[in-house]
Amino acid sequence: MAGTKYAYVRTFELPDTLLPGTFMVFRLDGHSFHRFSDMHNFTKPNDARALQLMDHAARDIMEEYPDIVLGFGESDEFSFLLRKSTTLYNRRESKIVSTLTSLFTSSYVFHWPEYFPNNPLKYPPSFDGRIVLYPADNHVRDYFAWRQADTHINNLYNTVFWALVQQGKQTTAEAHATLRGTVSKEKHEILFSRFNINYNQLNEQFKKGSVLVREEIPEPQLGATPAIPAQEDNFISTPETSPTGNKKKKEKRKAKPKTHIVVLHCDIIQDGFWITRPGLLID
Amino acid sequence: MAGTKYAYVRTFELPDTLLPGTFMVFRLDGHSFHRFSDMHNFTKPNDARALQLMDHAARDIMEEYPDIVLGFGESDEFSFLLRKSTTLYNRRESKIVSTLTSLFTSSYVFHWPEYFPNNPLKYPPSFDGRIVLYPADNHVRDYFAWRQADTHINNLYNTVFWALVQQGKQTTAEAHATLRGTVSKEKHEILFSRFNINYNQLNEQFKKGSVLVREEIPEPQLGATPAIPAQEDNFISTPETSPTGNKKKKEKRKAKPKTHIVVLHCDIIQDGFWITRPGLLID
Amino acid sequence: MAGTKYAYVRTFELPDTLLPGTFMVFRLDGHSFHRFSDMHNFTKPNDARALQLMDHAARDIMEEYPDIVLGFGESDEFSFLLRKSTTLYNRRESKIVSTLTSLFTSSYVFHWPEYFPNNPLKYPPSFDGRIVLYPADNHVRDYFAWRQADTHINNLYNTVFWALVQQGKQTTAEAHATLRGTVSKEKHEILFSRFNINYNQLNEQFKKGSVLVREEIPEPQLGATPAIPAQEDNFISTPETSPTGNKKKKEKRKAKPKTHIVVLHCDIIQDGFWITRPGLLID
Amino acid sequence: MAGTKYAYVRTFELPDTLLPGTFMVFRLDGHSFHRFSDMHNFTKPNDARALQLMDHAARDIMEEYPDIVLGFGESDEFSFLLRKSTTLYNRRESKIVSTLTSLFTSSYVFHWPEYFPNNPLKYPPSFDGRIVLYPADNHVRDYFAWRQADTHINNLYNTVFWALVQQGKQTTAEAHATLRGTVSKEKHEILFSRFNINYNQLNEQFKKGSVLVREEIPEPQLGATPAIPAQEDNFISTPETSPTGNKKKKEKRKAKPKTHIVVLHCDIIQDGFWITRPGLLID
Repeated sequence: MAGTKYAYVRTFELPDTLLPGTFMVFRLDGHSFHRFSDMHNFTKPNDARALQLMDHAARDIMEEYPDIVLGFGESDEFSFLLRKSTTLYNRRESKIVSTLTSLFTSSYVFHWPEYFPNNPLKYPPSFDGRIVLYPADNHVRDYFAWRQADTHINNLYNTVFWALVQQGKQTTAEAHATLRGTVSKEKHEILFSRFNINYNQLNEQFKKGSVLVREEIPEPQLGATPAIPAQEDNFISTPETSPTGNKKKKEKRKAKPKTHIVVLHCDIIQDGFWITRPGLLID
Repeated sequence: MAGTKYAYVRTFELPDTLLPGTFMVFRLDGHSFHRFSDMHNFTKPNDARALQLMDHAARDIMEEYPDIVLGFGESDEFSFLLRKSTTLYNRRESKIVSTLTSLFTSSYVFHWPEYFPNNPLKYPPSFDGRIVLYPADNHVRDYFAWRQADTHINNLYNTVFWALVQQGKQTTAEAHATLRGTVSKEKHEILFSRFNINYNQLNEQFKKGSVLVREEIPEPQLGATPAIPAQEDNFISTPETSPTGNKKKKEKRKAKPKTHIVVLHCDIIQDGFWITRPGLLID
Repeated sequence: MAGTKYAYVRTFELPDTLLPGTFMVFRLDGHSFHRFSDMHNFTKPNDARALQLMDHAARDIMEEYPDIVLGFGESDEFSFLLRKSTTLYNRRESKIVSTLTSLFTSSYVFHWPEYFPNNPLKYPPSFDGRIVLYPADNHVRDYFAWRQADTHINNLYNTVFWALVQQGKQTTAEAHATLRGTVSKEKHEILFSRFNINYNQLNEQFKKGSVLVREEIPEPQLGATPAIPAQEDNFISTPETSPTGNKKKKEKRKAKPKTHIVVLHCDIIQDGFWITRPGLLID
Repeated sequence: MAGTKYAYVRTFELPDTLLPGTFMVFRLDGHSFHRFSDMHNFTKPNDARALQLMDHAARDIMEEYPDIVLGFGESDEFSFLLRKSTTLYNRRESKIVSTLTSLFTSSYVFHWPEYFPNNPLKYPPSFDGRIVLYPADNHVRDYFAWRQADTHINNLYNTVFWALVQQGKQTTAEAHATLRGTVSKEKHEILFSRFNINYNQLNEQFKKGSVLVREEIPEPQLGATPAIPAQEDNFISTPETSPTGNKKKKEKRKAKPKTHIVVLHCDIIQDGFWITRPGLLID
């Protein structure tokens, strides 16, 4: 065969199998999104449409890859937890990282017009992705706690910062100077005393980020409001339909209960979230 | 700081630096593109619009990443050569693989309507990517020879196969049976005797794939036809404009001659292509 | 400085950090020990002196590296468990693998004359080593169960095989043929009916391998027989003295109870061994 | 089979293949040899017996592993070059690193009494090893130049330092202070003016380290003095006999000319050494 004499070049492809029995956390981040958000006039400090588009792309990934059991997003980043027993693509690192990053990106561009109908994309945005392995449950919980704590810190800062700029008419340099060295309590106070904003009453999505989990659809009440633990009152639910339409085949394979993916804006640092969802860390 | 007690989770991020002084070949492949091409009614055996869209996305990547000096595409795959001295993202494997795959995907979805104006995307397509390292010039040449030989083999097979099906009214199973065990010469003969097709006169893009290289723009004749070696008569040239619009900054940094990326459909197995472009393998 | 222009070659040294939070199992195997044991007239099927020398080298490693909490040896192989929190050599794989293999080898050659006083080494033996990571307790237990089950299987086979050869006067080919397809029970019966050997009464070391653990030395009775759980009646105990003599320094650093390393020939497949030693898997 | 249920633990053993087509440099270093040399009364600044023992162990490795084409040693370290086409142990990193380190260590301990007949080993010494990959000839040459330049720098420093201490009766602190900031020329002058030592006339082994290469044994004059390039007048030659005695088998396999390993103390920074030995870098 004509190609045979060159086929030796395949021997340079080295295996990149990820250690079995460990949780994979896949995180992706927007590439140069500071500029991207400026170019597309994102609302500051948070653009609800942009966040919902991120959530949509995340949901598409989770619908396509059942081994992803949890997603957490804030700003231009999203983290996903794959069960530790997953054998997705034989646990090949490049294959998993590139495919998940690609599908997320594709979904983001594909659904853009639904969220920005009057604001067409000016150029194709991109994301980078990576996988970090965590051997134990507590590492996974601490990882997601780290991201949600970060969400809180960043959002509080940005909220005050943009209030100072937009309503307080400070320059961005002045706003940074005003905030330098302030602790959390002082930031709350600036917001309340100078701008009459009660931080605690702001949109939960901005303060807590987006938490995507699978919930079972109760059999008799198909289509009814899914039963969500009472304390989590912010969510969007979508009936799970695969973005690539190959749902039927999968459902035949396994007689598992029907699930859909819900978007919550709840606390994932405390025990409650994890205790009520033992399946997240079980295998 | 609130997040500090969790920040230890970052110690699980291990370095994935790629060996310095080696060529990187980045290859991406369409994910489930058999189904994707069916769902979007791609012409068989080759869909010119789909191939041009692949070329467009490839050009976007090369415009954004000057360290990519060569691209080669066929069907739903594309390979890119990064110079061996590149320090892109400090040679971190996941960062490079995920970012390049993401930008390619993004560009593919972004430019889809230009190539399929009456055929909107039904769902977001995705790609997977990987990097293979090659230490020496001859490995790189053999890698690209391998891909182009593969292009030829696949295209000849597919051309006969679809002639048998579309014009010969065979079932796909019958067509595969007809072709089983045939050598190249016999396939040419089937094409010519039964369907009056001279394989050698088919579109060069289908037979040779797409070769993307940078060509200098001659200073006085900006906008004129770029000087291409005479034997390569199939190309599309596009003035290089960054998909993210940040071209100006880059041009200031370096006083290099202006280049643009050209799409050729020429032989890259023989010496000629490489000898006339010593810069491809120089560092 | 003269060497400066060449120092760039260090940039080719890539990090090889092992994932934190995972147990390391370091295993080494004799290199061409079939030949080595022939050349040095090892007794078949088991040479007690050779096994004791292996145990001695293993003890030397455990005395030098406090993060090794368990050793298991059989034939010409030894496995060691490093605690999952170990930061030995910053968890650099090559450094750990090479250093531990080197010290084991060195100790083996160094102590050879004590075990083979009339049988000098004919040439320097060597070992190879590797590290396997295990994320969870059950993996570690199953790893050591795997090695001990292997010990049992091999020893039963070898015991019958050599009885057939040495006492039954079969050729080695005949002995293999005799054993082909036999199950465990049949092997026991051959031993008992033809050679009057009760397998269960053989040396525990041959049947179970060697298990090395640290035991606390009871404070008041320094030098007295260490307290070993009653059911484990086969052991050699040695007061812990570092092979490199730097024991004092280490003892000053930590006020931990004095321990020594004991060699047991006990079951490590069942729960008992692990339940009575919770420290093995604790961190 | 009894062990079957545990055999899954093998799936945690991940491949560690080294990139094909690259030179491997294997370097080993003495572990805590400062202390080791003190404990065994090594002569300062150089102990000829200890260096010859290092050379002997290095020769043993090169005799056992024909794919090692070059060795370079100084002080308590040794570097070895493996041909870039080597398939030793399928290029598995841990296997190669651990086996070579083990054999070197073993040989060092085994041959110790020949070099230190009245100075028995007090405890088993150990070494650590690592492999660095180099894609191109010039990297390899620069690596070895780096080591030899380092040899020169260290030896000059140590020679003056120990002259100041041993003959000049300075304390070690004083000697370091005397040398602080001095350039090469000043060190030469101290040696000459205060101790009447002409550095250039010192033992070549101390100044240049040990260079081990294979030389063909001229057919007719077997056993005669091997033909060594005239400018290299310091060497020890040894007829190549495998330390493990399996030489005959190997010789039957290949009809290559007989070679032996010679120890030179010549310059390897300049071109001469490499030009006269094109085989070192050829494949």
